[in-house]
Amino acid sequence: MVKIVDTTFRDAQQSLIATRMRTEDMLPIAEKMDEVGFYSMEVWGGATFDACIRYLNEDPWERLRALKKRIQKTPLQMLLRGQNLVGYRHYPDDIVEKFVIKAHENGIDIFRIFDALNDVRNMETAIKTAKKVGAEVQGAISYTISPVHTIDQYVELAKKLEEMGCDSLCIKDMAGLLTPYEGYELVKRLKEEISIPIDVHSHCTSGLAPMTYLKVIEAGADIVDCAISPFAMGTSQPPTESIVVALKGTKYDTGLDLKLLNEIRDYFMKVREKYKMLISPISQIVDARVLIYQVPGGMLSNLVSQLKEQGALDRLEDVLKEIPRVRKDLGYPPLVTPTSQIVGTQAVLNVLTEERYKIITNEVVNYVKGFYGKPPAPINPELLKRVLDEGEKPITCRPADLLPPEWEKVKKEAEEKGIVKKEEDILTYALYPQIAVKFLRGELKAEPIPKEKDIGKILE
Amino acid sequence: MVKIVDTTFRDAQQSLIATRMRTEDMLPIAEKMDEVGFYSMEVWGGATFDACIRYLNEDPWERLRALKKRIQKTPLQMLLRGQNLVGYRHYPDDIVEKFVIKAHENGIDIFRIFDALNDVRNMETAIKTAKKVGAEVQGAISYTISPVHTIDQYVELAKKLEEMGCDSLCIKDMAGLLTPYEGYELVKRLKEEISIPIDVHSHCTSGLAPMTYLKVIEAGADIVDCAISPFAMGTSQPPTESIVVALKGTKYDTGLDLKLLNEIRDYFMKVREKYKMLISPISQIVDARVLIYQVPGGMLSNLVSQLKEQGALDRLEDVLKEIPRVRKDLGYPPLVTPTSQIVGTQAVLNVLTEERYKIITNEVVNYVKGFYGKPPAPINPELLKRVLDEGEKPITCRPADLLPPEWEKVKKEAEEKGIVKKEEDILTYALYPQIAVKFLRGELKAEPIPKEKDIGKILE
Ligand SMILES: [Co+2]
Ligand SMILES: [Co+2]
Repeated sequence: MVKIVDTTFRDAQQSLIATRMRTEDMLPIAEKMDEVGFYSMEVWGGATFDACIRYLNEDPWERLRALKKRIQKTPLQMLLRGQNLVGYRHYPDDIVEKFVIKAHENGIDIFRIFDALNDVRNMETAIKTAKKVGAEVQGAISYTISPVHTIDQYVELAKKLEEMGCDSLCIKDMAGLLTPYEGYELVKRLKEEISIPIDVHSHCTSGLAPMTYLKVIEAGADIVDCAISPFAMGTSQPPTESIVVALKGTKYDTGLDLKLLNEIRDYFMKVREKYKMLISPISQIVDARVLIYQVPGGMLSNLVSQLKEQGALDRLEDVLKEIPRVRKDLGYPPLVTPTSQIVGTQAVLNVLTEERYKIITNEVVNYVKGFYGKPPAPINPELLKRVLDEGEKPITCRPADLLPPEWEKVKKEAEEKGIVKKEEDILTYALYPQIAVKFLRGELKAEPIPKEKDIGKILE
Repeated sequence: MVKIVDTTFRDAQQSLIATRMRTEDMLPIAEKMDEVGFYSMEVWGGATFDACIRYLNEDPWERLRALKKRIQKTPLQMLLRGQNLVGYRHYPDDIVEKFVIKAHENGIDIFRIFDALNDVRNMETAIKTAKKVGAEVQGAISYTISPVHTIDQYVELAKKLEEMGCDSLCIKDMAGLLTPYEGYELVKRLKEEISIPIDVHSHCTSGLAPMTYLKVIEAGADIVDCAISPFAMGTSQPPTESIVVALKGTKYDTGLDLKLLNEIRDYFMKVREKYKMLISPISQIVDARVLIYQVPGGMLSNLVSQLKEQGALDRLEDVLKEIPRVRKDLGYPPLVTPTSQIVGTQAVLNVLTEERYKIITNEVVNYVKGFYGKPPAPINPELLKRVLDEGEKPITCRPADLLPPEWEKVKKEAEEKGIVKKEEDILTYALYPQIAVKFLRGELKAEPIPKEKDIGKILE
């Protein structure tokens, strides 16, 4: 019996409508979704925290509590970027601990924890803390393709995560790169080598995900991540209904009620209608370029607009050829935030300045020095030499070991600013100091939902 | 090695943009598509013939010749509705023969021939004629689900088609009902029982098709029908690129070049942009209701608007429950044009008049009398009694046996009207007498392509 994680409130809406779904659109259907029998509902983390404050003038902690009140049977799940939490830099351990404790207190039952470089040291504190508070921990592998990313290596990583106490394993295929038969091999090997349940998470970007789900399920995957059909496909997850039907009557049968799912679908058709102007028509179309250039869809469109701005769109082909070289120089990081930006920007510079690494970005310098963690393969020695000062060496310790505690400091600051009504507000401030102050002072307004008349602006 | 039929110019554009793609959008890319190595390209038949004349003021015969000039390596394929040709009624044998001969002369290499009731007598003349002119014939099974549609029955039908001389078999799953594991069983059995190649044709409506393709391929399917990504998914076929990637490096490898496909994709992204206002946002979203009610997506939206018009939308649920009953009474026809309309309209009447079969449509009368062919199962005897006069019996002969030859008559008529420049014009006139006269006299204008400003009108 295969289980399904519903991602509608987090990854699906993040992928399709730029994380703009309001809490008011979630609450009316939450109880019905609770009846379905999902393994869990992913409702928090990723970009939802940031988007709540920045665009929706909503308190993410309140959203979580409101959902928890209505969803009592289904475990609530969040996506946590390891030491980055739900932000964009490494936070010190005391902030990580506090955040996990508070997220659990407010309703998170399952923490899915990953690191962009698959450096488990960046996941350590979060995993330990989540275990300590009694939450379920899902250790996630950031899946990518490269000459150094082998099944053996993923198995190694999975074993490490199991040893670290993870209750289940997630294969997080954020770019939709995992093919059905490679997925089959990977899951088959993992099932032989680890004993915790395996969850496969993919995106339909390249059109592979539904097929890949089928084959990983045949290989023994226990859980797959889906979204209700109006928020599925495109750059989002495969549709729950299709997977339920595909498996019906087989030994993998999910047991979920298609009629109930259809009622939920009807509801979300209206929600989709509300936000339809945010859905990029292009994100709806299968994009196999991710498989040719191994550049995720989102990264490709970023590159195009970056080059357009500089009047150098004719160099796109060169940049696309340079990206794999930069990625190789940097030891084949998975291309996902923040590494996709780091690699992409450096590749553009290498092409436009007509000399590789004539200019090196700060991010590449920090990456090379080890501040993001350990790259999957060694850095190109020449690049290393160029970045480091005479006698300097990259750090080899866990990056967060270099970060002094911050909690007391941010707590004091936040209190002095008079923005603390609950302890969670201090965390909000610690994560996004600038925007949090404005938000907590009530100075922000929710961004309006684009209307049909804006269509010319939005579609271009 | 799995082969791929490209449907972009026929079924894909029919499914997504209401068959409105102009020949001018096909020609610039035709030669590049010819390089891909498709098993065939489906470029003609279905609704394309009608749409050319009715909406585009284009001569379908000229389109075919223009494509043939540019596509010299890849066989051109058409979809032929058996005795219905590309029209909506049964035509006499002499018209069917003439049509097939002319279609072949103008460039069709492969005829895919089906009948809505799977009554092979309605396919006989077309198959014989296509064989006689030396074309390849693909006999198609209209796939549906019902208590009388068993794998054994489909195997029986396939054997009959093989005996009739079909060079290959198509499983035509027009509603996207075939599930991966049922598809696997079906194809496995067929491979054991017939020796001609098997082509699976499905639609992504319910989200199953890509998964189903994978499993039928594992079961031995030789060919699958796909469309280039900008015209794939939704109510159309699975994307070629995704299937190519999914099978790459396996024993099923298609051998197609992803980079070449990507160039073709770039081209069709622009074509899609041109017609984007014709793409219903709803047709893009997976619709599993087809699997609950076994009512195809297109039929469901027709029902909704039919009931809306009559202020009876609150009876939708009742109608959805009545449809399976009417379908049962009529011997479980596959729900596809024209049977979907026949069943749907009668079900609406049965509900709104508050008495089943109080009013019986002419179409149901003719259907019951056998004029559409032999239903898959016996008609409900009570309904039969009600429809037939005292002592009257349904016909048991091949329906077309009752149709006198028409060619000489329509030829004379067309010539008298002065609309015949080439013999093909007589066929155009035979198929659509009213519209053909206006078209051939040059009185029609191409319908404009809807623009962004029309969006309010179109989206509702
Ligand atoms: Co994701
Ligand atoms: Co079709």
